[in-house]
Amino acid sequence: MALKSFIDVLPNSHFPIQNLPFGVFKPEPSSAPRPGVAIGDYVLDLSEIASAGLFDGPILKNSDCFQQPNLNKLLALGRPAWKESRITLQKLLSSTEPKLRDNANLRQKALVPMNKVELLLPIAVGDYTDFFSSMHHAKNCGTMFRGPENAIPPNWFHLPIAYHGRASSVVISGTDIIRPRGQGYPSGTSPPYFGPTLKLDYELEMAAVVGSGNELGKPVNVNEAADHIFGLVLMNDWSARDIQAWEYVPLGPFLGKSFGTTISPWIVSLEALEPFACAAPKQDPLPLPYLAEKVSRNYDIQLEVEIKPAGVEDSTVVTKSNFKHLYWTLTQQIAHHTINGCNLRPGDILGTGTISGPEPDSLGCLLELSWNGQKTISLKGATRKFLEDGDEVIITGFCKGDEYTIGFGTCSGKIVPPLP
Amino acid sequence: MALKSFIDVLPNSHFPIQNLPFGVFKPEPSSAPRPGVAIGDYVLDLSEIASAGLFDGPILKNSDCFQQPNLNKLLALGRPAWKESRITLQKLLSSTEPKLRDNANLRQKALVPMNKVELLLPIAVGDYTDFFSSMHHAKNCGTMFRGPENAIPPNWFHLPIAYHGRASSVVISGTDIIRPRGQGYPSGTSPPYFGPTLKLDYELEMAAVVGSGNELGKPVNVNEAADHIFGLVLMNDWSARDIQAWEYVPLGPFLGKSFGTTISPWIVSLEALEPFACAAPKQDPLPLPYLAEKVSRNYDIQLEVEIKPAGVEDSTVVTKSNFKHLYWTLTQQIAHHTINGCNLRPGDILGTGTISGPEPDSLGCLLELSWNGQKTISLKGATRKFLEDGDEVIITGFCKGDEYTIGFGTCSGKIVPPLP
Ligand SMILES: [Ca+2]
Ligand SMILES: [Ca+2]
Ligand SMILES: [Mg+2]
Ligand SMILES: [Mg+2]
Ligand code: NI
Repeated sequence: MALKSFIDVLPNSHFPIQNLPFGVFKPEPSSAPRPGVAIGDYVLDLSEIASAGLFDGPILKNSDCFQQPNLNKLLALGRPAWKESRITLQKLLSSTEPKLRDNANLRQKALVPMNKVELLLPIAVGDYTDFFSSMHHAKNCGTMFRGPENAIPPNWFHLPIAYHGRASSVVISGTDIIRPRGQGYPSGTSPPYFGPTLKLDYELEMAAVVGSGNELGKPVNVNEAADHIFGLVLMNDWSARDIQAWEYVPLGPFLGKSFGTTISPWIVSLEALEPFACAAPKQDPLPLPYLAEKVSRNYDIQLEVEIKPAGVEDSTVVTKSNFKHLYWTLTQQIAHHTINGCNLRPGDILGTGTISGPEPDSLGCLLELSWNGQKTISLKGATRKFLEDGDEVIITGFCKGDEYTIGFGTCSGKIVPPLP
Repeated sequence: MALKSFIDVLPNSHFPIQNLPFGVFKPEPSSAPRPGVAIGDYVLDLSEIASAGLFDGPILKNSDCFQQPNLNKLLALGRPAWKESRITLQKLLSSTEPKLRDNANLRQKALVPMNKVELLLPIAVGDYTDFFSSMHHAKNCGTMFRGPENAIPPNWFHLPIAYHGRASSVVISGTDIIRPRGQGYPSGTSPPYFGPTLKLDYELEMAAVVGSGNELGKPVNVNEAADHIFGLVLMNDWSARDIQAWEYVPLGPFLGKSFGTTISPWIVSLEALEPFACAAPKQDPLPLPYLAEKVSRNYDIQLEVEIKPAGVEDSTVVTKSNFKHLYWTLTQQIAHHTINGCNLRPGDILGTGTISGPEPDSLGCLLELSWNGQKTISLKGATRKFLEDGDEVIITGFCKGDEYTIGFGTCSGKIVPPLP
């Protein structure tokens, strides 16, 4: 029988005692931000647990990492500290452990109803990198812009392609996304279009949150790379396709992306995801030795994207995909990112790239679903080619086990018009 | 007659009382990092000046911005605070002001010989952006890779192209640069090369240090953009040309750049550069309204790059260029960067891109000078196509006036082999 908490957790909850994802929250609007874990419909306030002396393991006993406005200090402590915190909290929240269960005063202070709290960005993001690791997404985009013969660029099967994203505009789920202005692709010899983007899109992604970093000049071995990952979040890499198409040659995406990137508030650890690990796709050609790993793994994480237009009661699921479709693994991404000596730091995020699957309903962005505006997508009460003002985009992700669900909650954002 | 300091400053010094660039330093190896300004061969310790109560203006009187390990807090205070600090320090260091001049005890504590201090990265870099604003550089690189007909991409004259760089690997002048490993461009149908880069290069650049930022969603007006710039530094955007050529399609440079970017320690303010302002090149076609500025200005900053191979006594000047060659101005870069709502933060850096001029000896990187390895460059005691282990690259920059020089000092780095 599965481990149980003394806190009631509904069978379909994303946050059973097996999950315990980390986030940062404010219990009251005037409170200082502090770390917490999600348990059922509650947030456990880790600053209170630490103050009560309940982190009594050797690494965390005297640490102030739970009295911080973000998780970066905990992340920097490394995997042994993360394991210790998970073991401590799983024990503390279990049905058989009286320390918190029978302490009404501490329960009152430390367990805050989730619907009362404000969730904040859990990390101070140092650098944000976005990969391009779904073969289906690469193939579809390439076919659209370069034709089926040259769809996937020749480097794609040799290395996990990536670009640097903008860290300053990474925002927490629930933050409105202001429609960006910019230059759009001109037709023929006319000058470029200027104004609010006409092709605003979402990109269904997940992101690895870097825990412990590496020193400048010292690459991370692919077989040890998992130790550098604190956990995963959902990510929406909002994209303005007209701005992107005009600007991206030869130096890559810039203003077509940098107006906002949304992540979900709860970081789910690799330990919690472990029961849902699965084999990664077979790679052909074989990768170079620095990318060849002893065991190449993905996770079976079901992903969905819904769009809810303003004034329409129901949202419509537009994408159903799965993390396991990714060609390049998280550990290969880290080995590649650092092979030149580049240093990762605690709190960096590594986006997977748009996670498209092989089926027509598994395409991870409107660019693919509408085939760059050539097809119309039917929603309940509306049709779309790209996003309109008032549209809310909601990403969900979860691993469904026999006895429990390990979920990520949601990653959402609503489009609002630019300031006058 | 020009303003004079009570401190002896040699006529060719980069750091007369008219300059007063800001940096961060440690007076002793065990000291805490603190802000300072350069004056002649000395560093003035601003933490001591603040502790002595000599920042007595209305904005800085009670501020702890000079008791910080970086300049970010001063930067966030905005232009009025920067102006106040400059006026205060220029007065304090002038030959006619007794407060510091006649206080032997304070002079002893606050004036540290520059050759005794360790200079540190002056800012915590939030995001690092690199532009591509030299027409000569764009034309040369384009001609090399796409032929003279398609040399400059059609978007180039409409917008200042840029990409996000890697903030974590920005290092201070004097830091060794470890030759990166990676995948190089394959020839014909052979698999990609793997190993230490065979085409290691420097890029002569300058960078604007962002002072006050802007809110997400609120673009900066091009005519107000100068207020967001704290000052300028020299920058070397080290580049591995073989890695870059293989990886950069379609998402831009990544590992070919992210192994290290060197900046000079002293941030020279726009106030100090003001006497050297000059008209920017005429732009044709006229830029879109959001990029059209009332006055379009560059600065007349002479730039030189020297290479000093290991074991060779003399360095050789390989590039002589000038900041004034840039087509897109710093203010246009900021207006473009934020037009989509992207937020800049204090301490962000904006590289200009390689500053090549029109003359054969004004090319800002070895890629151009050796025409991608087709020509050999003669140095005193050696020849080069790209950089070899042990080579030291030294960038210098200065504005030469009739009565004084406003200089940036140097921005240097030595190539060392990768770790085994
Ligand atoms: Ca993406
Ligand atoms: Ca560059
Ligand atoms: Mg984005
Ligand atoms: Mg670089
Ligand atoms: Ni044109």
